[in-house]
Amino acid sequence: MKSQEPLDSSVKEMLDVAKTSNVSTVWDRYQSQLPQCGFGESGICCRNCLQGPCRISPFGDGPDVGVCGASADTIVARNLIRGIAGGAASHSGHGKHLAHVLKKVAKGEALAYGVKEAAKLNAVAARLGIPTENRSTKEIAGDVAQAALDEFSERETPNAWAATTLTAGRVAKLNELKVMPYGIDSIIAEIMHRTTLGVDADPVNLLLGGIKGAIADFAGCHLGTDLADILFGIPAPSVSEANMGVIKEKAVNIALHGHNPLLSDMIVATSREPEILAEAKAAGAEQGIQLMGICCTGNEVLMRHGVPTVTTAVSQELPILTGAIDAMIVDYQCVYPSLPTVAACFGTPLITTMDIAKIPGATHIEFDEDHASEKAREIIRIAITAFKRRCNKPVHIPPKTSKVVAGFSTETIVGALAKLNADDPLQPLVDNIVNGNIQGVVLFAGCSNIKVGHDQNFVAIAKELIARNILVLATGCGAGAFARNGLLDPQATLDYAGDGLKAVLTAIGEANGLNGPLPPILHMGSCVDNSRPVDIAVALANKLKVDIPQLPVVASAPEYKTEKALAIGTWAATLGLPTHLGLVPPVVGSKLVTRILTQDIKELTGGYFIVEPDPILAAEKIFNAIQERRQNLNISTRRW
Amino acid sequence: MKSQEPLDSSVKEMLDVAKTSNVSTVWDRYQSQLPQCGFGESGICCRNCLQGPCRISPFGDGPDVGVCGASADTIVARNLIRGIAGGAASHSGHGKHLAHVLKKVAKGEALAYGVKEAAKLNAVAARLGIPTENRSTKEIAGDVAQAALDEFSERETPNAWAATTLTAGRVAKLNELKVMPYGIDSIIAEIMHRTTLGVDADPVNLLLGGIKGAIADFAGCHLGTDLADILFGIPAPSVSEANMGVIKEKAVNIALHGHNPLLSDMIVATSREPEILAEAKAAGAEQGIQLMGICCTGNEVLMRHGVPTVTTAVSQELPILTGAIDAMIVDYQCVYPSLPTVAACFGTPLITTMDIAKIPGATHIEFDEDHASEKAREIIRIAITAFKRRCNKPVHIPPKTSKVVAGFSTETIVGALAKLNADDPLQPLVDNIVNGNIQGVVLFAGCSNIKVGHDQNFVAIAKELIARNILVLATGCGAGAFARNGLLDPQATLDYAGDGLKAVLTAIGEANGLNGPLPPILHMGSCVDNSRPVDIAVALANKLKVDIPQLPVVASAPEYKTEKALAIGTWAATLGLPTHLGLVPPVVGSKLVTRILTQDIKELTGGYFIVEPDPILAAEKIFNAIQERRQNLNISTRRW
Ligand code: SF4
Ligand code: SF4
Ligand code: FES
Ligand code: FES
Ligand SMILES: [Fe+2]
Ligand SMILES: [Fe+2]
Repeated sequence: MKSQEPLDSSVKEMLDVAKTSNVSTVWDRYQSQLPQCGFGESGICCRNCLQGPCRISPFGDGPDVGVCGASADTIVARNLIRGIAGGAASHSGHGKHLAHVLKKVAKGEALAYGVKEAAKLNAVAARLGIPTENRSTKEIAGDVAQAALDEFSERETPNAWAATTLTAGRVAKLNELKVMPYGIDSIIAEIMHRTTLGVDADPVNLLLGGIKGAIADFAGCHLGTDLADILFGIPAPSVSEANMGVIKEKAVNIALHGHNPLLSDMIVATSREPEILAEAKAAGAEQGIQLMGICCTGNEVLMRHGVPTVTTAVSQELPILTGAIDAMIVDYQCVYPSLPTVAACFGTPLITTMDIAKIPGATHIEFDEDHASEKAREIIRIAITAFKRRCNKPVHIPPKTSKVVAGFSTETIVGALAKLNADDPLQPLVDNIVNGNIQGVVLFAGCSNIKVGHDQNFVAIAKELIARNILVLATGCGAGAFARNGLLDPQATLDYAGDGLKAVLTAIGEANGLNGPLPPILHMGSCVDNSRPVDIAVALANKLKVDIPQLPVVASAPEYKTEKALAIGTWAATLGLPTHLGLVPPVVGSKLVTRILTQDIKELTGGYFIVEPDPILAAEKIFNAIQERRQNLNISTRRW
Repeated sequence: MKSQEPLDSSVKEMLDVAKTSNVSTVWDRYQSQLPQCGFGESGICCRNCLQGPCRISPFGDGPDVGVCGASADTIVARNLIRGIAGGAASHSGHGKHLAHVLKKVAKGEALAYGVKEAAKLNAVAARLGIPTENRSTKEIAGDVAQAALDEFSERETPNAWAATTLTAGRVAKLNELKVMPYGIDSIIAEIMHRTTLGVDADPVNLLLGGIKGAIADFAGCHLGTDLADILFGIPAPSVSEANMGVIKEKAVNIALHGHNPLLSDMIVATSREPEILAEAKAAGAEQGIQLMGICCTGNEVLMRHGVPTVTTAVSQELPILTGAIDAMIVDYQCVYPSLPTVAACFGTPLITTMDIAKIPGATHIEFDEDHASEKAREIIRIAITAFKRRCNKPVHIPPKTSKVVAGFSTETIVGALAKLNADDPLQPLVDNIVNGNIQGVVLFAGCSNIKVGHDQNFVAIAKELIARNILVLATGCGAGAFARNGLLDPQATLDYAGDGLKAVLTAIGEANGLNGPLPPILHMGSCVDNSRPVDIAVALANKLKVDIPQLPVVASAPEYKTEKALAIGTWAATLGLPTHLGLVPPVVGSKLVTRILTQDIKELTGGYFIVEPDPILAAEKIFNAIQERRQNLNISTRRW
């Protein structure tokens, strides 16, 4: 299938290796699943009780309701919001994990951790109404951690991480629609309850319940990012690189995969200790210890420590095929259960670390925050041992790397703009949007999905938009796709950006002493960090005295895959963003749900979904959505 | 299909009416879904991410893993525990709802409610370690309500409603297996997280996570029952009747359906007010207002107020077809979305009342605990108006009813036994178990499922067991099946019970002034009340100084359907009961998961699943499971 062809030559090269080594990868497994079940693809299969599975006939020549009488609308809506619940549980579970560690820090436990960013701690505390004056960092940290943990229980006040982070207009809108969450876990449970047999059958009511779950996901994401910044530091730009070429033949190569910085940050710190480095060298690794990231754990360590990215989620199996990975350490989310099988063929230790995320065939080393450094050391030593076992056997490492400048937290972006206008950092951005140098802003989020030619959509759409002077932000595996394809390199601004955008990025770059432009795409972090671009949108809306639905800002998930992406997409549309999806979501079995999500919701929230698999058409639709908003703001518009 | 033939002649009669009226029912919808998807039936379809749907080939001639590499074991385990999460969310959501109302009562709000059972409030408080001396009922109620609400949040102590209600041995076992829950909602969210793409792939780890969710379900159930008893009274035996014949042509017939007593209890009270009765009579309803229950809301009002049962979940549409139902009031769970369509054909108002449970085509009257009586009156008046609209049009009411003696709460059973031995009420039960008059105890729980001939399994298995001197307890739609088929009538003891059982039930009946035996099956309440029989098992185990896995007690769900049933079945097996399932659960696509649930788990918890669709074989297996335990206790055994 042509659409599955990956864009990146390193990926292609490793797929050839897979073929010759007779290793099955996600590419093969996808082929073996074809054709996939059309009922599931369109959302009209229900298994929510033991009278099922029930299927609705998509062509009207079979049953139009399930055994209980649930219609396609009901079934589609129920399935969708259970997916949102899965996404919200994932993001917020990650956030909760960080909150527990921050609480330990406050209590003087988990000694390997500390408050790295007291200023952010104070800023978050202030936003939450937690007093900071004359209080110790630990006291404040304790209160912030408790406030975070309190977000999960059912509460009498709205979720603070939603109610205090958005525009007043959005908060009012969420209240009006009764979709403001009052407890993350509680709403996940509510979704599970209302979707079980014989509870909620009203598709609109179900979707509103799902939207509430999506806002809970937003709260969970924002909380996760805030706490990660407090514990591990606010990302700042650094130069790194991406792609398989970061693997070094004569280094102990350790790939960090998953989502949570709790362990990976510890491994970064530990890997830099002279003692362990000496152990690696003593084992024959002349090039020392080479860490590299995959998926969002990769983003976390790239953003904060400049650790290079080896690849993104879809291609997570391929680095192992080089024969040069000495350990892959995984935490949770997006970790393919196939990894141990692939790793076994190459003698690569595949180490799971989280109690809720084990994989048959992997080595499980249960992570323990109270002994974080020791655990990190134990794991690195496994890699060193594996390196020794590698015995200089031939490796196959595609040499390609791309230069990457990453680390664009909200604070970094505002700080960089402040170099142009210290008193009012957002003004230069506003000026350039108004004068048309920047037509608008697009956030690329979401995963990579085997159904899409790997990186194809991300790169094709982004290039079209950059050329048309749209400022592009990216997170998650989207950012990873851009990293491996050279679009996080400042040179790409010179190569691809329209003149207006080029001028702005160059002005910011020069003002910040970079002797050149910023890259055309600003990497803002992992998928849990999608709240960072929202923070910018909120600041922009507040400055312009409009609300998010008026901003020329669009979200796009061209290759999305996870339930987390369903949750993010839903909150993006709820917060007022046109939200592009590059794959048809499993809702088309219900005309009603499809219409609500692509049209009717616009009246309710100002945001809506644009479903467009073709990348060029998608770019055009995204561009036009921006122009529509520019027109409504009475600023200059352009034609595609 | 023969297996679908209902047992009950009233049900058959109404199905004929459906046919002649051209109304489609769940029987027709089931036929139109056949053949159902074998992938879904065996649990090997995954839709947990957008790379799917993925299917495992059941015959080994197609893919053995999903796109991500998830095996059949992983997929089956993930699907199963998401179902458990749905069940736990339902039961505990019901419990949480009651906790909110009790909290209002404590604050002097929700004036229609009060603490009806101060002694139970005090007993629950004492169990929870809440002081009761010199405190007002409201103060204690406030603390108990808060303790209940605290069960949902992630906590630092085990769920009190699990840790304080079980045997010490079971608590130790749950701790040992790390399946003791620490917050109901939090565990539901954890299950959703660990089952999303790329988190937990280890089937054993997943199942343990599901077991923790099932124990959270148990806590939610027990809490729901305790609070319902506190608010609405502990059920005590009363004589009532069951089946379509309870509908009265010249009465305002109101069917109460769903699960929660909050609204239904109010409707019972309001329906007995002279003023509203006068309104009904003025409208021409000479026979007044006739309430009747369906499903577990029906069980709630039968247990506490002797309101007759018209039918159970599978046949919930049929009473409407009589043309004599003047309103069906539903709350949540097991309410078929088909109801408004059926009701529309007969001009019957179908009234939804809960914000999380709307149905397109229904009239929604949002229930509000602060105006509970007014809402109840508003709803009854709708029925009165509908009665008037009925204008003596012909109705078709199958006349059959069965006498029912129900209301066997734990307290009632212990109280009845106390009449035989006031100092040690359980001793007569123990004596009769030891001497073989009672071979063992079987709890029939679970729903009715269209895949099983309605009531067939329940009645066939129970009759076999009763004849063999097994004491039968029942809840939920199981109890409803027995009610409609005459097995909750004391006469059935004389007709069907073995001599030993007959003697015991007669002795208890006589001692309690009944001039005859208890019925051979004791109706213990709705599905959320399955903790009541556990309380008895715990008391028995403690008295005998053994643990639950040693008791000659078995659970059976011969016609189960909902995710709640998956949760209940899982906790029953975890608490140490052999647990019979009358339908093959969607796990057979994984040999490993199937083996764990039917065999390996026995080593871990002492309980296990017996899957047997044939009722006679099922009865034999249940009987033999009891004999195995009798043998291990060194008491007399019998052969089938
Ligand atoms: S909930 Fe309804 S549609 Fe879904 S499986 Fe059960 S009977 Fe079928
Ligand atoms: S989680 Fe895995 S098995 Fe399930 S749909 Fe996604 S790729 Fe397929
Ligand atoms: S086979 Fe599972 S969705 Fe169709
Ligand atoms: S179509 Fe097979 S389970 Fe849905
Ligand atoms: Fe991610
Ligand atoms: Fe029930």
